[in-house]
Amino acid sequence: MSILTRPILEIDLNKLVENFKYLQTIAGKATAAAVVKDDAYGLGAVEVAKILYQKADCRTFFVAHAVEGEQIYPFVKDADIYVLQGVGEDSVEIFENINLIPVINCPEQLKLWKNIRAKGEKSAIHIDTGLNRLGFREEELKNLSKEELDSFSMVISHLSCADIKDHFMNDIQLNKFKELRAKFFPKTKASLSASDGVFLEDGFLCDIVRLGAAVYGINTAPYHQSKVQNIINIKAPIIQISNLKEGDYAGYGATYRAASDRKIAIVSIGYGDGFPRILSNVGKIFFKIDNSVEQAGIIGRISMDNIICDITNIKNINIDNLAHIIGDFYTLDDMGSDAQTIGYEIISRFGKNKRFVRKYIS
Amino acid sequence: MSILTRPILEIDLNKLVENFKYLQTIAGKATAAAVVKDDAYGLGAVEVAKILYQKADCRTFFVAHAVEGEQIYPFVKDADIYVLQGVGEDSVEIFENINLIPVINCPEQLKLWKNIRAKGEKSAIHIDTGLNRLGFREEELKNLSKEELDSFSMVISHLSCADIKDHFMNDIQLNKFKELRAKFFPKTKASLSASDGVFLEDGFLCDIVRLGAAVYGINTAPYHQSKVQNIINIKAPIIQISNLKEGDYAGYGATYRAASDRKIAIVSIGYGDGFPRILSNVGKIFFKIDNSVEQAGIIGRISMDNIICDITNIKNINIDNLAHIIGDFYTLDDMGSDAQTIGYEIISRFGKNKRFVRKYIS
Repeated sequence: MSILTRPILEIDLNKLVENFKYLQTIAGKATAAAVVKDDAYGLGAVEVAKILYQKADCRTFFVAHAVEGEQIYPFVKDADIYVLQGVGEDSVEIFENINLIPVINCPEQLKLWKNIRAKGEKSAIHIDTGLNRLGFREEELKNLSKEELDSFSMVISHLSCADIKDHFMNDIQLNKFKELRAKFFPKTKASLSASDGVFLEDGFLCDIVRLGAAVYGINTAPYHQSKVQNIINIKAPIIQISNLKEGDYAGYGATYRAASDRKIAIVSIGYGDGFPRILSNVGKIFFKIDNSVEQAGIIGRISMDNIICDITNIKNINIDNLAHIIGDFYTLDDMGSDAQTIGYEIISRFGKNKRFVRKYIS
Repeated sequence: MSILTRPILEIDLNKLVENFKYLQTIAGKATAAAVVKDDAYGLGAVEVAKILYQKADCRTFFVAHAVEGEQIYPFVKDADIYVLQGVGEDSVEIFENINLIPVINCPEQLKLWKNIRAKGEKSAIHIDTGLNRLGFREEELKNLSKEELDSFSMVISHLSCADIKDHFMNDIQLNKFKELRAKFFPKTKASLSASDGVFLEDGFLCDIVRLGAAVYGINTAPYHQSKVQNIINIKAPIIQISNLKEGDYAGYGATYRAASDRKIAIVSIGYGDGFPRILSNVGKIFFKIDNSVEQAGIIGRISMDNIICDITNIKNINIDNLAHIIGDFYTLDDMGSDAQTIGYEIISRFGKNKRFVRKYIS
């Protein structure tokens, strides 16, 4: 009998590399870059960047913040590392010390960058084509000098609806991107698509594609069955098995009341580990018993460290069975859908927590 | 003009100490213990444990996992550190190396602990009184020998509804606790209440109270105005200010469409930093302009690194104004309420993220 207390996060780096290589084939002649921002969506930017550098010849990385670029830099020194949030006074020192490429998002960042580009590194420019988030607008581009326009080594934009194949925004953005490139950046390398855009027509590929979510196993083109593999297994031990009598309450706020006698398991994972509390009373947890996957409903409120689930109808379960939280049969996307969000947010939460026994498979 | 890129998390350790001392007075003769599990709800278990040890003479700490106890142990060596999830084969080594006190939750953990208690440390026992989460049930206590019952240095239980003053469960649990203590643990020290139970009648205080959420500024007794101070400020820079024309869309999925011309700010914080994505299109962000607090509605979907908000009606705002995410005027509890959850989950998320510039005020 095995008595455990800590939840377990397994990250399959082999499958991660396979996902990346598969996406490289989809990207055709475009260069496949890896997006490892937000600590590689919580999975460990250093581990992910290293393995993609070594096993998939990835030489282009995107991070959100300079401090994230600094973290991976020692492991991918000759690679291009782009910083999507650009440059600020709080990151100048990092840009002065190591060779990162800021993505300049607005005139104020351009001004700051021109003051500190002592070493003459080139920068990229972000232009907006309809997402209306970061990036220069056309009227701002008109204010740039030819010298300024020619100083950028890459022009990037970001699609808003590329996960929906026929969304009207896709063509609007592609056409706007073509138009702005022709006007302002006729000879500059270009990047338009992230993990979702690569599944659209070839026109969206341009010179560099920025691959994040799909590398981590998220289905970024949900109009077809996932073409990438799940790379995450999250498990948690049962701490205790006990019983509820008819009429007993369970969990904080007494929000669950047993309509009949129940058998319950207390599983050692909670919102403190990243399990969305919104799944209280409605989420599900899985057990693998005798080669079949059994489903147990979450009862009561999810607490910081524990979840109560109903195992009344699961035969042969005992305290040394691990609860399966995320796996091939219930993916990040599945939990995202149940928790009124997306797989991206789910993994970004789970991945941050130190209480997991973290295992990399490679 | 100040151009920044990283969000900022300020933790006021002075106010944290004041909250703890205030709660000590409420606790009367009971010993006030600090709950620093989940990395002190993400705020940094080492920093929190150290300051409470030094400034508030706290000598009793609770963590969830042994690995968390190991983290704070060097800084509070002569304190009692209780481990709420108890002991497992994955934590035996830690218990053998350092002096932590497991809270034994079930017969299986007791058996394991008896095998490894070579040094003879005492343990605590967790008994269930109606929460129906972890803890021995009465029928399991009946199976313990007198020697086993006497071996525990403390008996603890946990209230399910103590944040609601007159909830029927409170008296049920208190009476059950008294009954089980009288039957099985007549001479053993006892702990029943966490941050919410301390505000109930004196009978709930027992020997030790376990203070977590309220120390961190969460109102654990929401039937009255908060008696503790907010200790958290979360801010984020504006990266860019721009305009939407009537009919323009903003954000992923084009879920927001401008009904009229709007002015927008792109703020450098997102769900990757812990901002709940469920607040897409409905949440709010604040700006302090000329000594007044102005509110901006979030528009479009929240993304991993950025939030778009509508600043049309905020005068005199410019790119060097910081956005205020959490503060005295919009607390963890307020965001919890808006995001269909509780302040506990909110801080547990924000606190985990390395991209914050983290500042401790002490």
